[in-house]
Amino acid sequence: MTHKIAILGASGYTGAELIRLIATHPFMTIAALSADRKAGMQMADVFPHLRHLDLPTLVKIDEIDFAGIDLCFCALPHKTSQEVISKLPSDLKIVDLSADFRLRDPEEYAKWYGNPHSALEQQKEAVYGLTEFYRDDIKSARLVAGTGCNAATGQYALRPLIECGLIDLDEIIIDLKTGVSGAGRSLKENLLHAELSEGAHPYAVGGTHRHLGEFDQEFSAIAGRPVEVQFTPHLLPSNRGIVATVYVKGDAETIQGAFEAAYADEPFIEVLPMGGVPSTRHIRGSNFVHLSVVPDRIEGRAIIICALDNLTKGSSGQALQNANLMLGEDESAGLMLAPIFP
Amino acid sequence: MTHKIAILGASGYTGAELIRLIATHPFMTIAALSADRKAGMQMADVFPHLRHLDLPTLVKIDEIDFAGIDLCFCALPHKTSQEVISKLPSDLKIVDLSADFRLRDPEEYAKWYGNPHSALEQQKEAVYGLTEFYRDDIKSARLVAGTGCNAATGQYALRPLIECGLIDLDEIIIDLKTGVSGAGRSLKENLLHAELSEGAHPYAVGGTHRHLGEFDQEFSAIAGRPVEVQFTPHLLPSNRGIVATVYVKGDAETIQGAFEAAYADEPFIEVLPMGGVPSTRHIRGSNFVHLSVVPDRIEGRAIIICALDNLTKGSSGQALQNANLMLGEDESAGLMLAPIFP
Amino acid sequence: MTHKIAILGASGYTGAELIRLIATHPFMTIAALSADRKAGMQMADVFPHLRHLDLPTLVKIDEIDFAGIDLCFCALPHKTSQEVISKLPSDLKIVDLSADFRLRDPEEYAKWYGNPHSALEQQKEAVYGLTEFYRDDIKSARLVAGTGCNAATGQYALRPLIECGLIDLDEIIIDLKTGVSGAGRSLKENLLHAELSEGAHPYAVGGTHRHLGEFDQEFSAIAGRPVEVQFTPHLLPSNRGIVATVYVKGDAETIQGAFEAAYADEPFIEVLPMGGVPSTRHIRGSNFVHLSVVPDRIEGRAIIICALDNLTKGSSGQALQNANLMLGEDESAGLMLAPIFP
Amino acid sequence: MTHKIAILGASGYTGAELIRLIATHPFMTIAALSADRKAGMQMADVFPHLRHLDLPTLVKIDEIDFAGIDLCFCALPHKTSQEVISKLPSDLKIVDLSADFRLRDPEEYAKWYGNPHSALEQQKEAVYGLTEFYRDDIKSARLVAGTGCNAATGQYALRPLIECGLIDLDEIIIDLKTGVSGAGRSLKENLLHAELSEGAHPYAVGGTHRHLGEFDQEFSAIAGRPVEVQFTPHLLPSNRGIVATVYVKGDAETIQGAFEAAYADEPFIEVLPMGGVPSTRHIRGSNFVHLSVVPDRIEGRAIIICALDNLTKGSSGQALQNANLMLGEDESAGLMLAPIFP
Repeated sequence: MTHKIAILGASGYTGAELIRLIATHPFMTIAALSADRKAGMQMADVFPHLRHLDLPTLVKIDEIDFAGIDLCFCALPHKTSQEVISKLPSDLKIVDLSADFRLRDPEEYAKWYGNPHSALEQQKEAVYGLTEFYRDDIKSARLVAGTGCNAATGQYALRPLIECGLIDLDEIIIDLKTGVSGAGRSLKENLLHAELSEGAHPYAVGGTHRHLGEFDQEFSAIAGRPVEVQFTPHLLPSNRGIVATVYVKGDAETIQGAFEAAYADEPFIEVLPMGGVPSTRHIRGSNFVHLSVVPDRIEGRAIIICALDNLTKGSSGQALQNANLMLGEDESAGLMLAPIFP
Repeated sequence: MTHKIAILGASGYTGAELIRLIATHPFMTIAALSADRKAGMQMADVFPHLRHLDLPTLVKIDEIDFAGIDLCFCALPHKTSQEVISKLPSDLKIVDLSADFRLRDPEEYAKWYGNPHSALEQQKEAVYGLTEFYRDDIKSARLVAGTGCNAATGQYALRPLIECGLIDLDEIIIDLKTGVSGAGRSLKENLLHAELSEGAHPYAVGGTHRHLGEFDQEFSAIAGRPVEVQFTPHLLPSNRGIVATVYVKGDAETIQGAFEAAYADEPFIEVLPMGGVPSTRHIRGSNFVHLSVVPDRIEGRAIIICALDNLTKGSSGQALQNANLMLGEDESAGLMLAPIFP
Repeated sequence: MTHKIAILGASGYTGAELIRLIATHPFMTIAALSADRKAGMQMADVFPHLRHLDLPTLVKIDEIDFAGIDLCFCALPHKTSQEVISKLPSDLKIVDLSADFRLRDPEEYAKWYGNPHSALEQQKEAVYGLTEFYRDDIKSARLVAGTGCNAATGQYALRPLIECGLIDLDEIIIDLKTGVSGAGRSLKENLLHAELSEGAHPYAVGGTHRHLGEFDQEFSAIAGRPVEVQFTPHLLPSNRGIVATVYVKGDAETIQGAFEAAYADEPFIEVLPMGGVPSTRHIRGSNFVHLSVVPDRIEGRAIIICALDNLTKGSSGQALQNANLMLGEDESAGLMLAPIFP
Repeated sequence: MTHKIAILGASGYTGAELIRLIATHPFMTIAALSADRKAGMQMADVFPHLRHLDLPTLVKIDEIDFAGIDLCFCALPHKTSQEVISKLPSDLKIVDLSADFRLRDPEEYAKWYGNPHSALEQQKEAVYGLTEFYRDDIKSARLVAGTGCNAATGQYALRPLIECGLIDLDEIIIDLKTGVSGAGRSLKENLLHAELSEGAHPYAVGGTHRHLGEFDQEFSAIAGRPVEVQFTPHLLPSNRGIVATVYVKGDAETIQGAFEAAYADEPFIEVLPMGGVPSTRHIRGSNFVHLSVVPDRIEGRAIIICALDNLTKGSSGQALQNANLMLGEDESAGLMLAPIFP
């Protein structure tokens, strides 16, 4: 059986990535694509790499007849997303890729995003979309909130350790490096090739990045007490890929065991042998996560390294994985594409 | 039905690309992988991006039992390839990705590659692997010779025009730009990141690149008279992708018509509207070719632009397309992966 | 003696490059910097790489007292430049880096740039700024028009050959590859890192690039008859550097001789031995030009390769070289910085 | 007065960088260049970007007459360096860029580098070359040991804080990102463009990087007690530049004050305003260091960011700065070149 899919916000990178993945998906077909400012255009003109596909013309959201849609991906900017979703049919299955439904506490949302939440009703039913840890809830959810790409990376590295009480909760540092596609297709000076290539720098230093809202919410919930991590993202001269280097106080071997136990049956989480070193180039374009732990020379300290592709496992791949679950299909359908290297 | 596949030379980039593509192929399974110097190793250690796959251990070629193999990809260096292939079972279907069986005239081979050919018998039965133009021969071939990646690019741009007599055969210039993966995983100073990035330069200038042997052979055969083109490849600071800018004397509209006619039913050749401009970023990681023609301001001259991924359509994707044909399967099986962008 | 310099349009890449070069210039001091939209800002905030310099605050143009200025660099967008320059003191020495005063025929200007010229008086006195060929005129000029960066590259490769009648004037093809900084700091989707890196494509195909106006003007003037070249620029995933591959009909050895004669005493033009291959990485950040010729395998044809840094020799370095001459100083003052590699 | 300089190991990146800097140095002239395997070659063939310079032919070390040499830069691999230096004239001023004379304790050297030290006499007189902190010793030194590039970066961020007792000495984490030129011109698979570009990964994880020997030595000496930091370098897809993100427990404002005091008169250390964010692209190709501090959201914790160019301030620029001091000249002579951006 084929499921009919709509993608709202199809002219951004996460929209394009959804289409790339669905292009070879065994039982999804794209029935509608929206892009507000590019309505009326063909995808071949917006994203020439998709020109071989027979895709619907881009339309405005209100031109879509949602009656025939089985599931809708919402790849709109945050704030816009909540406004749009609050007006969509209340029985439409939705996977939202924005930040709008990630934080359960509306005050936390307002604190991190600077505006009050305007779709509180929908927010209540939203399920946090980190598949491996919310699988059962996602299966029966109507609205799933895709996680932040950095937030996903940090959580794969830390959730099992917090869950099992293996590390000092007050001494967690996530030093993360990300490619530029996470910033989207927005026209900003610092995203220009001439500004970005051949360079690297941290940003949102000092605990100001919005994905901290997700870390706080999730880690505190698992620990049953407030947990605040340190988190510094860095912008790298590459397009795709996140690698997080996480500094913890705990025993590396125990951590290795916890990872192997937690992720034993996961189709997309590859736990490397102790001392292994993930690289963003080894998961590029795929839904896989590479994860490892290395003991530090200082006794009782360990370094955890986690790599994933921000556009795939960190965003559109995760969204598709969740959609598969919501539609009652095999979770990994259409997602087993091998990473592209070199 | 599943076909059992062997890949000889699996530790190079074309070997890895074959595995990436076969990973989601509907009816191929990898039964054997060879890598002479890395025999005994796991692919996860040679190419960590393939670690999620359940692949056979790398072995030496003579450890492989070819009795159970339906088709063998040979991704060895030229010269080695002919030596190996001459000793393989004479009824084994083989797709060779090296340069060894591309040139039908052994003297031409010796001239361009600097050594006499040592597998003349096999050479006689080899079919040139440019699928779109040798499809019928490939279907019944035992040994198919994959084309040069640059040679493929230039031929997609020129074959229909030479065939239809649309251009001046003495005034063809192919100015080609290629990413670095075409040079393979070899340790050369000029392939280092520090040498290559942030720069560009021509190489093999003046008509000395070996792929000219293929251009000469094919274009002369089509034209029924000797045709010599000018050809300058350039090395770019990118990993994948070739874009050729071809200067011809002929009428752009007529050329556009010839392209549309020649490639109307081809699943992988995308003829852009007149004046369109292909880019390597729009075919990255895929088996698609983007092709266009633009009239020059000087009457009677046209510029043809052709882009493809050297590792996919220029090498391993082409090889898989040919293998599909040789195995009696749908030519595009496993090859419809959309390009990866950004 | 120290010359006081003003730079109008200091917040763009050519403005920044001028400051970088003047930072270690023996007898220039920066007295005023303008940037319309960034007036009031410090350069350290606009270009943090210049923060170690003691520079004047950015102001609007009309805040500058030109009485104390010995020479003014105008690094404004075309069209704006002519409007500003027409109102500057008529005895102020000016080096303009825009396209506004490059074309001597106002109709040619209107044809290529789409608007009528509004500073015809100034245009009459402007000298074309290709130093090596207009040196004497530049020495006594009040207003020098910096050349296009692509136009400079093509002219170094072709002027001596046209001058000496060594090539077929109807069969010249300039296939040029350029880094992205030539496009300036403008916010365009195709200049984003995620769009540009790992890819390459031609643009302005078919004879539509504005620098053709300069080629037409200069080559026709030298030849004493109309000369129209074919010219295709390509955008590369690098920041700096242009390499032009020029296809001509002529004798390579004679061309080599002509280059050696023409450029024997030039401090910045390096003629490589016959068969040498320039690369953009070997002139990066410097005022040097690397130039070579290679015979094609087809008798009577040659390939000329010319590389320079678009921001230095192609723009701000050239401007400084001309300013040195206009101020009666050694032409190479402040410009002998070696290229930066890797 | 002009000082005659020799450079041993001129065919590597640090050798080339020395020549680039000395090319415009006011009172140094290059009298001899050695390169063992490339003896007899011209620099224009080894490093075409230096072809405009009139440089001596590469020779073997024993062909150099050191009688006329005022100062010798030794840019050889470690281990080779000590063997060579032990045989050079004992009154020859030497700046060594290798790791051989950085560690004062021969056992520490053996521990980190895996071989016993074979030039113990020279090691005793060697001065550690971190100019800002060993200036007086360097002025009168005969042999100066250039620091590790990573080691320099971490020390600029931490020395003043340890000196003033501002941070918890047991809780220091240096997460460092470096471009690839630090690995030199060696032929390793992981340094190929196709392997490195579009990716990022940590290496020497867990406290195994050799520069830890320098951190241990220097920080312990300042603190008067053993200090062990955590240190994880990451390899980035860029050529030049190091940025270290250092996590400490201490008060950000006090740290800012300490930086401003410590570096007030330093010509090359730029302390950014509180909260500023250095980037490798803002110091590229220069001898400048950009340094900043940002308070973390967790009270009592701060993040220090330090960026420098590994080939310049981290190696050859530092070497030249030290050579200036040893020759009694202005420390910054020839080193005020502005960073190159974009």
